[in-house]
Amino acid sequence: MTAEPLGERRPLPGPTTRTRVLHVDGSVARERADRLATEEPLEIRVAGPGQETVQVAVTMRTPGRDFDLAAGFLFTEGLIARPDEVAEIRYCSDVARTEQEYNVVTVHLRGAFDASHLQRNFYATSSCGVCGKASLDQIEVACVPLAEGPAVTAATIAALPARLRAAQPAFERTGGLHAAGLFSAAGDLVAIAEDVGRHNALDKLLGAQLLRGATPLADRVVLVSGRASFELVQKAAVAGVPVLCAVSAPSSLAVDLARRLGMTLVGFLRGETFNVYAHASRVAVARVPA
Amino acid sequence: MTAEPLGERRPLPGPTTRTRVLHVDGSVARERADRLATEEPLEIRVAGPGQETVQVAVTMRTPGRDFDLAAGFLFTEGLIARPDEVAEIRYCSDVARTEQEYNVVTVHLRGAFDASHLQRNFYATSSCGVCGKASLDQIEVACVPLAEGPAVTAATIAALPARLRAAQPAFERTGGLHAAGLFSAAGDLVAIAEDVGRHNALDKLLGAQLLRGATPLADRVVLVSGRASFELVQKAAVAGVPVLCAVSAPSSLAVDLARRLGMTLVGFLRGETFNVYAHASRVAVARVPA
Repeated sequence: MTAEPLGERRPLPGPTTRTRVLHVDGSVARERADRLATEEPLEIRVAGPGQETVQVAVTMRTPGRDFDLAAGFLFTEGLIARPDEVAEIRYCSDVARTEQEYNVVTVHLRGAFDASHLQRNFYATSSCGVCGKASLDQIEVACVPLAEGPAVTAATIAALPARLRAAQPAFERTGGLHAAGLFSAAGDLVAIAEDVGRHNALDKLLGAQLLRGATPLADRVVLVSGRASFELVQKAAVAGVPVLCAVSAPSSLAVDLARRLGMTLVGFLRGETFNVYAHASRVAVARVPA
Repeated sequence: MTAEPLGERRPLPGPTTRTRVLHVDGSVARERADRLATEEPLEIRVAGPGQETVQVAVTMRTPGRDFDLAAGFLFTEGLIARPDEVAEIRYCSDVARTEQEYNVVTVHLRGAFDASHLQRNFYATSSCGVCGKASLDQIEVACVPLAEGPAVTAATIAALPARLRAAQPAFERTGGLHAAGLFSAAGDLVAIAEDVGRHNALDKLLGAQLLRGATPLADRVVLVSGRASFELVQKAAVAGVPVLCAVSAPSSLAVDLARRLGMTLVGFLRGETFNVYAHASRVAVARVPA
């Protein structure tokens, strides 16, 4: 259903791109080879049986796992909820320019696609934004109730960043790409996804779980490599993730939403220390008075 | 024209928000006070004389300098080009819910607003994305030709990150907020802007320069605190910035665009070392063979 295409077309661009740079060290400069994280636009289209395809979003992403990304985007934005809603995902063969042939993906649905959902959701995702409290209310409707979920020990949480980094290739560990990791409550890495965009990394991770029928992720822990924004909390909540951890800080609205949705939100993971910003009941640790 | 409103309304939310967290250190946890970067949605609307207002974008931003942000967004997305196109910028007083009153800004134009521009640009900015090569062509049209611009010494470039950090309050230095700084070719800080979103930080910086009639920024250097994406290069190019520096790595498409537009692109600024990814002719440094 979602296999990447084979055949005579040019290869899919890789996650990194070779280039030449002028490397400056103090007052001396020399040219040398370097690698960059690949960034290309992906247009996501949706079509029901017999319907015209509709453009849902354009996202700047690192090529690879584009079908997971497309499915994950539709899932975490509330446009689809179950894997059996997806009939087929494929790259568009009717794109005018050859260099764009891997930059347009269409998700074909088994049922009709309701474009009125799109209208609301398109605004909700433009410029990484959400249209205020009205959308907050919608999001809570779209989210499955979060399970009471696992208790996770403090030692397990503290160990997650090193396990995520160990699963990334050398280049990605240098900070060139964001990563999102799916873990068991015991801290075992279940799946990983990478992208120049942290929203995309999470959508790839969650989209793959949707397509294999593993959602809601009621007993899982997710770690993202950067900060936790409102949108990352929203996306994780739609997938039923009860514990979201971020290497860096969450925003005020991310904390608000996690508290409202019953999600455990962890941030500032540095060595053996971290902060729990919401629903600390799932974190098993000895507490001392403040 | 663009003063923030005074009067009886609730105060604008600050750039940071106080909260209580459970701080975990090894196997011990205690509750303590903490601060978060404030994140709230901002809806940007545009209206010409006698025209209905049109929603242009919703962005998740840190409150403060919202008029700079709105003007900067319209400017760097190619919807306005000069300060005299703006008649007035104000918060909307007709917002239904009190808690949203600072989350909607309308830019009133002196001339008619052409919604067909919006159509193209709305797609160009949804989900931080751009629709491929067609949009690349548009962007080059929207950009003023980049001036030959200043020569900047390697020592000046290496000193920029410390100067940007020194101008940020303590909280922001911890990594809670992205920053964008405008510098002279000699490395003197001219202006700074901060935001949870790096696109917003740059739009606030460039919007303020537009409103004071300082664009194009033909003899300036801009430093952004994170990575350099395609969109940041695009925004800087529209403002005529000849030298863009990023503390972290650029993406492949950011480098492609800088090379096409004639922009000097610097990244990976670490101590005395950095890489020049495009148009190194503006960097004054002794070169040795590779």
